[in-house]
Amino acid sequence: MKTIYADNNATTQVAPEVVEAMAPFFAENYYNPSSMYEPARQAAKAMTDARWAIARHFGITDPEQILFTSCATESNNLALFGAARARPNRRHVVTTAVEHPAVLEVCRELGRSGYEVTFLGVDGDGNLDIREFIRALRPDTLLVSIMHANNETGVIFPVEQLARITKETDPAILFHTDATQTVGKLPIRLREEFRSVDLLSFSGHKFHAPKGIGGLYLKKGTPCRPLLIGGHQEEGRRGGTENVAFIVGMAKALQLAEENFQDEDTRVRDLRDKLEKTVEERIPHVQVNGKGAPRTPNTLNVSCHGVEGESMLMQLMSDYGICASSGSACTTGSLEPSHVLRAMQVPFTAVHGSVRFSLSRYNTAADVDRIIEAFPKIVANLRKSSPYWDQERNEPRLEHVDSVR
Amino acid sequence: MKTIYADNNATTQVAPEVVEAMAPFFAENYYNPSSMYEPARQAAKAMTDARWAIARHFGITDPEQILFTSCATESNNLALFGAARARPNRRHVVTTAVEHPAVLEVCRELGRSGYEVTFLGVDGDGNLDIREFIRALRPDTLLVSIMHANNETGVIFPVEQLARITKETDPAILFHTDATQTVGKLPIRLREEFRSVDLLSFSGHKFHAPKGIGGLYLKKGTPCRPLLIGGHQEEGRRGGTENVAFIVGMAKALQLAEENFQDEDTRVRDLRDKLEKTVEERIPHVQVNGKGAPRTPNTLNVSCHGVEGESMLMQLMSDYGICASSGSACTTGSLEPSHVLRAMQVPFTAVHGSVRFSLSRYNTAADVDRIIEAFPKIVANLRKSSPYWDQERNEPRLEHVDSVR
Repeated sequence: MKTIYADNNATTQVAPEVVEAMAPFFAENYYNPSSMYEPARQAAKAMTDARWAIARHFGITDPEQILFTSCATESNNLALFGAARARPNRRHVVTTAVEHPAVLEVCRELGRSGYEVTFLGVDGDGNLDIREFIRALRPDTLLVSIMHANNETGVIFPVEQLARITKETDPAILFHTDATQTVGKLPIRLREEFRSVDLLSFSGHKFHAPKGIGGLYLKKGTPCRPLLIGGHQEEGRRGGTENVAFIVGMAKALQLAEENFQDEDTRVRDLRDKLEKTVEERIPHVQVNGKGAPRTPNTLNVSCHGVEGESMLMQLMSDYGICASSGSACTTGSLEPSHVLRAMQVPFTAVHGSVRFSLSRYNTAADVDRIIEAFPKIVANLRKSSPYWDQERNEPRLEHVDSVR
Repeated sequence: MKTIYADNNATTQVAPEVVEAMAPFFAENYYNPSSMYEPARQAAKAMTDARWAIARHFGITDPEQILFTSCATESNNLALFGAARARPNRRHVVTTAVEHPAVLEVCRELGRSGYEVTFLGVDGDGNLDIREFIRALRPDTLLVSIMHANNETGVIFPVEQLARITKETDPAILFHTDATQTVGKLPIRLREEFRSVDLLSFSGHKFHAPKGIGGLYLKKGTPCRPLLIGGHQEEGRRGGTENVAFIVGMAKALQLAEENFQDEDTRVRDLRDKLEKTVEERIPHVQVNGKGAPRTPNTLNVSCHGVEGESMLMQLMSDYGICASSGSACTTGSLEPSHVLRAMQVPFTAVHGSVRFSLSRYNTAADVDRIIEAFPKIVANLRKSSPYWDQERNEPRLEHVDSVR
């Protein structure tokens, strides 16, 4: 049975073209890009070319604004801690309740070390309240960190609008966005729709580069102290010998992503929409999380009342070879229900019955057909033995909700 | 002309076996090791196996003591900042003047944020003074960070002796060693000759794994707060999706290194010794830095009086295809002479004329013969036009030294 990978918000397969682009930088052009001799200059040049390619992708002309890191978690830590250290007099941070742990936990850590943190809530569709956001900005606000698209639901926040409001309120407030789920999926032009953003994090492995490489856009003049201190690499902003192979690979992956934006926005979106429509038609008492909000074209997060998410996932894999997830891979293993869905006030019987399907350009119509075949059957079967499902009325046991929630 | 790579302390070629071991984890087994479905469990298992293999290499039975990072710089930053955050009441750090920037600059940063830092000096051979070390330990000492072998000279410090003294003085003082230049070159048994060490940093790309993967041995119970905060990866001690391919590659590289320890200690050592002996015989006014100290078997650092290091390196490359370096790649580009050689009080006319040759198991006798053929000729030629060389007396212009130094 062929495995169907529908968990592309967790990680992605490395594109064969990326594997090919990286190959020379292991056993042949393995030189340290900081070394002065000619072969090493070639490694340094490959890295410079990659930085330029990524800068061009983002529509910026100064490649030094792109910093390479080991992952988006490092980028987010660097952005938030780096800003805090550069501006120690400002002690307030604004973020949302639905950020990835790499922002949320950093904000909590700042909270423990004396910062005040405002965690903005979201409505049932996952949208922020702009008025609440405006009220949250204070004279001592250091930084706003609001993700571009949510990893669990795909809900897109109006980042440039929020950044513009921030800058109009106080140009000294820094605006950071974790764009891990959109870079490589949606066109992001930093001098156009993101011109008010100061810092933007991204991660190669979300767009078919390998795990272990990320980036941070750091607008010229943005105060940010380094997180990894050591050699002069990245102009003294990030010590450590550079991962030349993966840097080259990430640039290649971004070029391929750009070539596939049209496909992502049409064919992949259509596959997701078809899946969504069928799930809504065939599964009673199901809700599409974030349905009323703008979303990334590849993501579908559904909650099926009265079913355990883990059981659905297990059957999807064992009986149909389908990889999907309940929420974020980064919080997998914890028995806590998703903090994102809880913030969206998804009811108790539904929050535990949530599944995220996230597609990529490698998914085919046949993949989605298999999911469509499998998923409603699995839900129906599981409900037959679920204590949260009323067999006679064929609806969730709502009294149970009230007593437990 | 075949390139001869004699700069293995800067970085190394990735072993073909390592390239092969990593290959399946890009386009095939690309799953997020945190995901719950079966194929991802395979990725997680590969990572667990790698952690076990590395633990076994170090002679420890608890693999959770091995933490994966993106590079030794991250490991060093994590060790020092992590310890400082875990024990905020202790405000004194002991290190040496000859550490790699990834330790030195972190110590300076701690110094700027209110810590007192003792930078221990070394003698002309690069050795520490044990009595001075003992005197440096204080009741408020948080941590000692002393490298195992120096990247520029190969000089080995008696780490276990220093760690034992530290623990006998005060068991609460943490002992960290940056073993970037020895892991994979020398056997390191953490429960035997390193049993008093609490934290030990290493880097894959120094032993034929790729750039972009490192590790930190964190002895059980050692207080250390995370540097990268986010998901639950590495048991909450290092957020960020794991670089599965490179983790697998690093374990493979360490296994190969272990198989080659004998070769490193005999054939490679003999090549280095032959090079050293010939250089001393054929080049007048040359000094081998660290000659009187125990050194790693692959490293030769020589200072040729009255010659510019950069000119020697340029001719080694352009006329003979030989890659060597002057000091550390991590400080390359700066015009400052090596902080290591200055700490060893290498005279002015010699410190600028320093070249480091560092071999690996991939170097052959023919490689060393080419260096032996090339190097004395280059030095002799350059001296003919050097303002620091007295042509008539055929010796360095010492009066110049006195006026400038």
